[in-house]
Amino acid sequence: MGNIYSDRIEALRSIMAENGWDAVVITGSDPHSSEYPAPRWKQVEWLTGFTGEAGDVVVTADHAGLWTDSRYFIQATTQLEGTGVELHKTRVPGAVPIPQWLADKARVVAVDGLCQSVSAVAGLEEALGEGGLVVDVPDMLQELWVDRPQMPVTPVTTIDVECFGGVPRIDKISWLRKWMLLNGYDKVLLSSLDEVVWMLNVRGSDIEYNPLVISYLLVSQDYVKWFTKKSVTDSGLDPDTLDSFAELKMDGVDVEDYDAVFFALSEDGESGNIFIDPSTLNSHIHRYICGCYPYGSVICGTSPVILEKAVKVQSEIEGMRQTYIDDGVAMERFLHWLETEVASGREVDEWEASERLTAFRSEIPGYRGNSFENISAYGPGAALPHYSTPREGSAIIRPRGLYLVDSGGQYLTGTTDITRTVPMGECTDLEKEDYTLVLKGMIDLSMAVFPRGTAGCQLDALARMPLWRARRNFGHGTGHGIGYYLCVHEGPQSIRYQYNPQPLLPGMVTSNEPGLYREGMHGIRHENIILCREAGISEFGDWLDFETLTCCHIDTSAVVKDILGPEATAWLNAYNERVYRTLAPLLPAETATWLRHKTVSI
Amino acid sequence: MGNIYSDRIEALRSIMAENGWDAVVITGSDPHSSEYPAPRWKQVEWLTGFTGEAGDVVVTADHAGLWTDSRYFIQATTQLEGTGVELHKTRVPGAVPIPQWLADKARVVAVDGLCQSVSAVAGLEEALGEGGLVVDVPDMLQELWVDRPQMPVTPVTTIDVECFGGVPRIDKISWLRKWMLLNGYDKVLLSSLDEVVWMLNVRGSDIEYNPLVISYLLVSQDYVKWFTKKSVTDSGLDPDTLDSFAELKMDGVDVEDYDAVFFALSEDGESGNIFIDPSTLNSHIHRYICGCYPYGSVICGTSPVILEKAVKVQSEIEGMRQTYIDDGVAMERFLHWLETEVASGREVDEWEASERLTAFRSEIPGYRGNSFENISAYGPGAALPHYSTPREGSAIIRPRGLYLVDSGGQYLTGTTDITRTVPMGECTDLEKEDYTLVLKGMIDLSMAVFPRGTAGCQLDALARMPLWRARRNFGHGTGHGIGYYLCVHEGPQSIRYQYNPQPLLPGMVTSNEPGLYREGMHGIRHENIILCREAGISEFGDWLDFETLTCCHIDTSAVVKDILGPEATAWLNAYNERVYRTLAPLLPAETATWLRHKTVSI
Repeated sequence: MGNIYSDRIEALRSIMAENGWDAVVITGSDPHSSEYPAPRWKQVEWLTGFTGEAGDVVVTADHAGLWTDSRYFIQATTQLEGTGVELHKTRVPGAVPIPQWLADKARVVAVDGLCQSVSAVAGLEEALGEGGLVVDVPDMLQELWVDRPQMPVTPVTTIDVECFGGVPRIDKISWLRKWMLLNGYDKVLLSSLDEVVWMLNVRGSDIEYNPLVISYLLVSQDYVKWFTKKSVTDSGLDPDTLDSFAELKMDGVDVEDYDAVFFALSEDGESGNIFIDPSTLNSHIHRYICGCYPYGSVICGTSPVILEKAVKVQSEIEGMRQTYIDDGVAMERFLHWLETEVASGREVDEWEASERLTAFRSEIPGYRGNSFENISAYGPGAALPHYSTPREGSAIIRPRGLYLVDSGGQYLTGTTDITRTVPMGECTDLEKEDYTLVLKGMIDLSMAVFPRGTAGCQLDALARMPLWRARRNFGHGTGHGIGYYLCVHEGPQSIRYQYNPQPLLPGMVTSNEPGLYREGMHGIRHENIILCREAGISEFGDWLDFETLTCCHIDTSAVVKDILGPEATAWLNAYNERVYRTLAPLLPAETATWLRHKTVSI
Repeated sequence: MGNIYSDRIEALRSIMAENGWDAVVITGSDPHSSEYPAPRWKQVEWLTGFTGEAGDVVVTADHAGLWTDSRYFIQATTQLEGTGVELHKTRVPGAVPIPQWLADKARVVAVDGLCQSVSAVAGLEEALGEGGLVVDVPDMLQELWVDRPQMPVTPVTTIDVECFGGVPRIDKISWLRKWMLLNGYDKVLLSSLDEVVWMLNVRGSDIEYNPLVISYLLVSQDYVKWFTKKSVTDSGLDPDTLDSFAELKMDGVDVEDYDAVFFALSEDGESGNIFIDPSTLNSHIHRYICGCYPYGSVICGTSPVILEKAVKVQSEIEGMRQTYIDDGVAMERFLHWLETEVASGREVDEWEASERLTAFRSEIPGYRGNSFENISAYGPGAALPHYSTPREGSAIIRPRGLYLVDSGGQYLTGTTDITRTVPMGECTDLEKEDYTLVLKGMIDLSMAVFPRGTAGCQLDALARMPLWRARRNFGHGTGHGIGYYLCVHEGPQSIRYQYNPQPLLPGMVTSNEPGLYREGMHGIRHENIILCREAGISEFGDWLDFETLTCCHIDTSAVVKDILGPEATAWLNAYNERVYRTLAPLLPAETATWLRHKTVSI
């Protein structure tokens, strides 16, 4: 007996026995807490066959378990069959998290400290208590995983901020150094990849969908050291990368080998203190730093880069505005094509639609790839919270009911994210009602005005109230921050039911995406991207509101006007009119004519 | 030179010099952190002449200052004239709180520990740092304040829960004891007066507007000791009080002298631990307890009584419903009278109106007084955040513009609170606009449905959004909890812009009172009282909504229908219709006819 995965787990158990470990914890994270890890770090997938984006594995002498949340229950059940790995459901009533589960089952627990954050390991140590021990074994699976992928080595490019917007890297470095001076920090280590590449105005493609370069950044008042793929001998690097390194050098940034971060940290340990962010720094590096620096000189806090990056500067805002218009052109061409094809009776499936959308996007100048995997889902598929369109055998899009498409592009001048739910023909009353309630929530939030200092969680109820009043709800956040040619999900702001005290600030770009999902029936999400901006000062305060960046019409055929109400209807008509006027000159004549019909006032 | 207050401050300085105190802090609080102190504890007023409800005084050798917030800036400036006391503004940008202000000016600070909470003294100690000392001098002003009022001694009555709703005291005591057992607490000391009288089902009138009895309650598994006005020899107590004490005795409650709490605490100190709530317990008792109990056996936390009291039981809910109808009868009679008088050309001033309203209320069976000082304010007076209607020379209510009346009653079957803003005739466009925007916010919140677990701060934006969208706002909370024949302001829930994680629970009674205030022009507030209740379970969750308890029509003459919108207009029409149908049979015929006209659909 035994399939490939149960064999691998048995092999791991041998290593555990040799070393005297009671348990090991394997995560699917990379050393930089990235949302998507490169293949090298898909350790959970290698060990268990589970391919979901969130899941941690615990192996003991007599148990192997995968901890994952409701998005992956069905997928995990299927993929774990025959592996002997049991599913542990997280975020359900009575769920026992890994640290608490291990507390009475293990004393010595081995983790790959490179792939767990400081905070996660601290939680494990606390649960194990005084008699417990967390052993840090970097690259624990190395000897078993013989064909483990190498570190990705993709070209590094630099951003020309004069052309594409943003702040010159020397100004960002000066800003960070000033922040360090004001706070009394001698060094800062950045390990979150979007923070690193934002600081240096560089981009790569080491990670799917996110234009990142795997690396660490160490900044002092005297130097900026970037630890990345220099280990590929200089002659082995492509010319673009070499040019990028030369440009960085001119701005005082030393490029060193990825692994040289350890030496640099130890070399520096005697002098001064160092600031780190334990929510993203991996535990292995943290332990290493704590060994190099005297007690009390490793200072933990929230990296200031996160907020600075989230507040877009004027040139970035202008880039975003234009990018969302360009992206809207691709979206409208796609929607026109889809409607025409389906109406003609041709059998278009979800996969073909997705590919076609990517093709339209790729015609846009500055396009650098998609910002996440397209969700192209018709009917019941759209109700699955994490639907991944299969290449073969995806559903045919019929001329009735609802089709949902959630997609986005990476462009030199910004990152996009948009969801449209498209009535393909006749819809049921329930589909129309759900469609309209979700839309009303999206519009109510779009129309919000609020005093400076207001956090997204204070506005979340606006997007949900039309649904709530009909006793309906959706299980995800209403809005996430969006990067500038960077990650499509970024903090620190959010618009969520859960508490997050970060105020929305002018220049922040956030999604507005309420939804509704009925298993086996339909899924609806309307997503626009909104820019927080100043909205005047009155005797009653200092006001902010949202500018909608997304420029793509919202189909009115499934709208129930009585439910939407006059105010939201007026907003919708004005929005669709603006979309038409903005895009018509940029569209093929036939598509422009079609868009005129789609945007007629209701 | 010197007026009466500067003389008193000089006398206090002599005491300070004798004792070697660098500074003293005098507060306006009583030993129970009550919202309104009895006259005996109006120490700030006695020392400085300032009569505002919030204000603390600091005296040093060369400075005397009053710290108060914006509600009292004008009043304080007037009242402090000639006293030598300087106004320190709190809650303004750059404001320095008392502890921080004292930090570099004093080493030894004397406080009346009876009149400061544990938390407040802890804050002061922290600010003074290691070299500092906070000396606890109970009744510090005693020797100077020769005619200081005595402790109030008002009759104590018991609540017949069979008749008037609520839970029998023996059940409440059992509940508290179970909570103590589950948490491992041997004793609980309650000092917040509404918690004490709620536990015992007793009421008094020691404090204006609040039916409280000044006392402490000490509960163990073996005894319940109530420390109150027994020092008035039994023969000096009125028959009702003696009956109440006898009834309590039968339920196992020992009544002892107010000051006997110290002896009881010291007697008990050797055995077990004690639970206290430092947010309301005074510092003097806390220090005393810490001297009696071993280190580590004084446990601080949030009193469980606060939440238990806030969640009304079925009989209380029924009592509240009827009480708000009765209160509505008084309100409608008053509003009819007011409109008729003013229309007739007679000069009714704010004071007369206020008195007349109280007269109507006092005709209701079960009426036990007002629940706070009536706010009866016409025109610009209503814009003052803390307007107190003067007996002499109050404004005449003219047949134009807006009149605001915020009032409430104490009844055996509940406490009421209602604000109506009444258009007395022609209103300006701005008055109508403001009136309608505030009303729309009140209605939008009334219509909310939300999942179990939602806190008031997540709904606050609903009540403000119509104003926010017009760049207008109000500076107070949207809603506070309301007691059952108890304090008109109670926690733990609130509906506020500020974070308060307490979820709204079925059975909680909260106000819904957005407003708008334009200095020199007009003030508007619409206040209904809303009961949180269950609203069904769907596949998407477990739902709660609000039932409006307040039963008094809302004037439609100043409503701008286009601003209110169809949904809120429908709510308003249905509400007014319900008010009419409920109250008409209970009103004098003429008033019922008048109300029919006032509640015609718009």
